[in-house]
Amino acid sequence: MKPYKKLMTRYKENTILGNINGILSWDFEVIMPKKGTQQRAEQLAMLSGMLHKRSTAPEIGNLIDKIQSHAKYGDLSTIEKRNVTLMKRDYDKFVKIPVEFAQELTKHGAIATESWKKAKTKADYSIFKKDLAKMIDLKKKQAHYFDSEKDPYDVLLDYNEFGFSTKIYDKIFDEAKAGLVPIIKAIAGSPNQPDDTLILRHCPVDIQRKVIFDIAKFVQYDLEGGRIDEAVHPFTSGFFDDVRITVKYYPEDFTPAFYSSLHEAGHGLYEQNFPQEFKYQPVGQASSSAMHEGQARFIENIIGRSDEFWEFYLPRFKELTGKTFADVELKPFIHAINKVSSTKIRIHADPVTYSLHIILRYEIEKDIFADKITVDEIPSVWNNKMKDYLGIDIENDAEGCLQDTHWAWQYFGYFPTYALGSYYNAQFLSKMTQDIPNWRDEIRTGKIATIHNWLNTNIRKKGGLQDPLDMVKDITGKEFSAKYFIENTKDKYSKLYGL
Amino acid sequence: MKPYKKLMTRYKENTILGNINGILSWDFEVIMPKKGTQQRAEQLAMLSGMLHKRSTAPEIGNLIDKIQSHAKYGDLSTIEKRNVTLMKRDYDKFVKIPVEFAQELTKHGAIATESWKKAKTKADYSIFKKDLAKMIDLKKKQAHYFDSEKDPYDVLLDYNEFGFSTKIYDKIFDEAKAGLVPIIKAIAGSPNQPDDTLILRHCPVDIQRKVIFDIAKFVQYDLEGGRIDEAVHPFTSGFFDDVRITVKYYPEDFTPAFYSSLHEAGHGLYEQNFPQEFKYQPVGQASSSAMHEGQARFIENIIGRSDEFWEFYLPRFKELTGKTFADVELKPFIHAINKVSSTKIRIHADPVTYSLHIILRYEIEKDIFADKITVDEIPSVWNNKMKDYLGIDIENDAEGCLQDTHWAWQYFGYFPTYALGSYYNAQFLSKMTQDIPNWRDEIRTGKIATIHNWLNTNIRKKGGLQDPLDMVKDITGKEFSAKYFIENTKDKYSKLYGL
Repeated sequence: MKPYKKLMTRYKENTILGNINGILSWDFEVIMPKKGTQQRAEQLAMLSGMLHKRSTAPEIGNLIDKIQSHAKYGDLSTIEKRNVTLMKRDYDKFVKIPVEFAQELTKHGAIATESWKKAKTKADYSIFKKDLAKMIDLKKKQAHYFDSEKDPYDVLLDYNEFGFSTKIYDKIFDEAKAGLVPIIKAIAGSPNQPDDTLILRHCPVDIQRKVIFDIAKFVQYDLEGGRIDEAVHPFTSGFFDDVRITVKYYPEDFTPAFYSSLHEAGHGLYEQNFPQEFKYQPVGQASSSAMHEGQARFIENIIGRSDEFWEFYLPRFKELTGKTFADVELKPFIHAINKVSSTKIRIHADPVTYSLHIILRYEIEKDIFADKITVDEIPSVWNNKMKDYLGIDIENDAEGCLQDTHWAWQYFGYFPTYALGSYYNAQFLSKMTQDIPNWRDEIRTGKIATIHNWLNTNIRKKGGLQDPLDMVKDITGKEFSAKYFIENTKDKYSKLYGL
Repeated sequence: MKPYKKLMTRYKENTILGNINGILSWDFEVIMPKKGTQQRAEQLAMLSGMLHKRSTAPEIGNLIDKIQSHAKYGDLSTIEKRNVTLMKRDYDKFVKIPVEFAQELTKHGAIATESWKKAKTKADYSIFKKDLAKMIDLKKKQAHYFDSEKDPYDVLLDYNEFGFSTKIYDKIFDEAKAGLVPIIKAIAGSPNQPDDTLILRHCPVDIQRKVIFDIAKFVQYDLEGGRIDEAVHPFTSGFFDDVRITVKYYPEDFTPAFYSSLHEAGHGLYEQNFPQEFKYQPVGQASSSAMHEGQARFIENIIGRSDEFWEFYLPRFKELTGKTFADVELKPFIHAINKVSSTKIRIHADPVTYSLHIILRYEIEKDIFADKITVDEIPSVWNNKMKDYLGIDIENDAEGCLQDTHWAWQYFGYFPTYALGSYYNAQFLSKMTQDIPNWRDEIRTGKIATIHNWLNTNIRKKGGLQDPLDMVKDITGKEFSAKYFIENTKDKYSKLYGL
């Protein structure tokens, strides 16, 4: 069908422009010289202007209409129809955003990120406040453009994870809070606490780098189609054959780099393993943000924090790190790796307390967009919730509301997807355990191929064929629920802490 | 004036697209993962298609016409008029080239480069010959499109360096040959030869890297507006506030990395020091290719190979390199650094013999375009000239007429600009010595500010305000001549070799 082919050509061109944007953004975050900021902002603004113009070109809307009303529409394959659906979904949103507004949003993202960086370095929220306020205003405007009838935060939540809303999140997050808070308390009260000193040992960056490259290869992250570099805030960026991950090293604690690189490798693996025949088609992308996040956490937590992974990896780890960890024994080490304790920093949080970091952000974002709290109040609200949920005192904002780059980069409504990913995963894991009953034995002997293939077949190779809630149901045969996550968490940590 | 503003907006947009292209090409050359090639080629093809379309848009021609015939044309400032002139010069050329021809030329450039690579690897000129012949035909056609009345090689020379022709080059190159050949002979016959072993010592890449960053800072290359990375063939790429240089290290000889990084830093300094108010205007670029090359060679040769630089730098160099060069003494070291000896390979040539490599290429190109020699005859003509000018026997074409990539990539008429840069420099140097009589004493004590400012004021800060021949006359008060270069060379090397 001619209009379908034309539509796909437009999609390909726009994807290429998007990829260019990706490289420029990666460069900006990872290696760009300091003074290049203004220039780069102009490049990104121009690209996003062009992309917006192309994505909202009436031609695209016309082609979609022509295809959907075409006599031969029924002859299109499921994949082809899905491509049209996905393009229509984006087009209907994009077309509502004026070009100048899209450019302003992108440009302000770069500016706000610079002031966020300064603010974080100096632990001075006032440096960032004005740019954050402007970003919030811009995001309210954007939500209003998308759908002026709905609550703006609901609009952003649905934009970030198709099918979701405050109604759904309120439900699962209340369930999670109710399930997790008692576990966390029980853990805190357990006499059986892990020994930190098995982990917190000086480990030079050069050695950590060797370990990181080693485990990235183990989980099948392809370094010929990717890179591992350093960045202030680790992220993954790329497309099919060039998917780059980043890491930040801490010489006195190898775990942040270790687990964030497994996490980013998980993201990278999703992108690297989309079917090549989906390249430059709407189905050649993740099902959703949370599905992406889930793929990252699958590698990080389900594989990387399992007893069996360390049964296999500890000897190799000892070899790579020289004398530093020579004396540690497996069981106490695994317990230390899986230590649960409240931390100030989200990205350093363990998988149990992590959800509360997200719920905190979700609640603050919800209240910001409902005009219940102002930008001035964010630090105090943040600090109060940290005290309430995790019993933690925040003394400086660099470790509080300035810790994440997301708001500077306009990602409101995005944090909840981070928790969702683990909830999806727990449900997937129950199915994978049915399909591969001996998967833990495989890991124990350093084999990852079966699990890698299961993830490829069931998730990665499906790209964007289905929306996340459909995908969860299709893979597991059950409706999405947070209960698997809560059950898993109870099981795993009860054993570890002898509860 | 409205059409002027419109024209400048177009220029700005195209420049930003060009900058994006620059970042993607830099990434491709320096850090891109292997598998990304196809994807990147698609990105670059899309950008260059867009750029070509935008540069040849009839709107640009119309705007230029409107401006030049506007009642208020006289009210434009000198800079504004110059901007229009420069845009017209490019547009008139671009617009004469049919799209299909431009595409064919680019495509054949890629094909010829592939066969050149094979030919060079196998040292078999016959593999490249056919594609070279076709490239020459295409370049004749291109020259004909540009100007059907002029000699095609004159057209290409003028295209590569505005205002130049075989008439000018014949004169300066004859003069250079007459001056240089006797010096080179005298040097070869001198009993006072330098000692290579003072330089050819194992120096690990990590240490060389420290030295490179140190000297780059010394010459005022701004690392907050640039980067230094590794690449197979060193190059400079960037724009105003983000100008990156690359270097290739050889552990057994520090001089290639040392001098090519000073060279690239010289290129970088030119770009980094264009006036900010010229940004996104045609005057915000180099006056010409040779002027750019000159700025690179000024830092590399006039500063970096001077006695005074090493008087200042040798102690610091010894400190940074540990014991490796601890025993070397200043005078013999300077002599070794300035060793003159005929080499087969242009890019390894010293500043004295270098000109003859260029003259040889110029004479061959001239005769090719005048149909005085055929493609079949190139190797023998090349080898005969190498024998005549430098006393060197070429045994295989990989070290002869196959050594450079330029012809495969369509750069005919470009080589001469490499020599020109040094000739401009020598004339500038005579003026700088009048303006700053003690500049050598400044270098000797590690001061570069006065020289840096002189180069900024007289050259870099002028951007593209003048064409190169006007610029030379304006700065020095004298017509351009090669005699300064010949005199300087005689002076410097007579002293070094005790002639």
